Amino acid sequence: MTTPDRPAAVDRWHRIVETNDPEALDALVADDAVFLSPAVFTPQEGKTATLAYLRAALTVFGDDTGFHYVGEWYATSSAVLEFVAELDGIHVNGVDLIEWDEHDRITRFKVMVRPVKGLQALVPRMAAQLGRP
Amino acid sequence: MTTPDRPAAVDRWHRIVETNDPEALDALVADDAVFLSPAVFTPQEGKTATLAYLRAALTVFGDDTGFHYVGEWYATSSAVLEFVAELDGIHVNGVDLIEWDEHDRITRFKVMVRPVKGLQALVPRMAAQLGRP
Repeated sequence: MTTPDRPAAVDRWHRIVETNDPEALDALVADDAVFLSPAVFTPQEGKTATLAYLRAALTVFGDDTGFHYVGEWYATSSAVLEFVAELDGIHVNGVDLIEWDEHDRITRFKVMVRPVKGLQALVPRMAAQLGRP
Repeated sequence: MTTPDRPAAVDRWHRIVETNDPEALDALVADDAVFLSPAVFTPQEGKTATLAYLRAALTVFGDDTGFHYVGEWYATSSAVLEFVAELDGIHVNGVDLIEWDEHDRITRFKVMVRPVKGLQALVPRMAAQLGRP
């Protein structure tokens, strides 16, 4: 999917989702990036933490989940991308709220997920990828 | 908050949130509207069900919750509005994904909420407003 008015940062994010390119992801995330998870209030601050969460999400939503984006909304220096996927047959519907800086590097990445069963399927899979019990 | 490029349906929704005007809400929702809750996968179909959920939400996020919108993103015939509120001290952060028809009547209203504790605070309050155990 290519749209002529798609912001550069969103375009780069889409390519990373398609290719799972770790170097491109590293280049896209700003040093002071913050990740906000669907599960926990406390922000995960810094590029290292943000990369860890994004890599975990790319792995969890990798092969065989049918992950794909179904909607996009833009504002100045931010966008919302809606996605759907299935985790072992459980429907997951969510949004990525993405903000970027003047260099088109992501400074803030927030995720929300519905319904409750989808969130309950996602949380332990993310924890496993992040090496948490 | 007024923005010159805000779509008419979004503008009308904002006025309803501010005034809690039941007639304006009734006029804004299309007959074939669908409501998708943050908690449950199954869509709530039809104007009656959609109005019931929107009225319940307006009541739950009424006085003393500090409910307000913090972001807006537009596409053709749809928008995403991000909100924050507190339910008895529990932080709730969510999005309304709103679609409308050629008459600027809402045809689809989807809500996602984070974090888990915020969703857990919201669900029983919505159920109480909807008259469910």
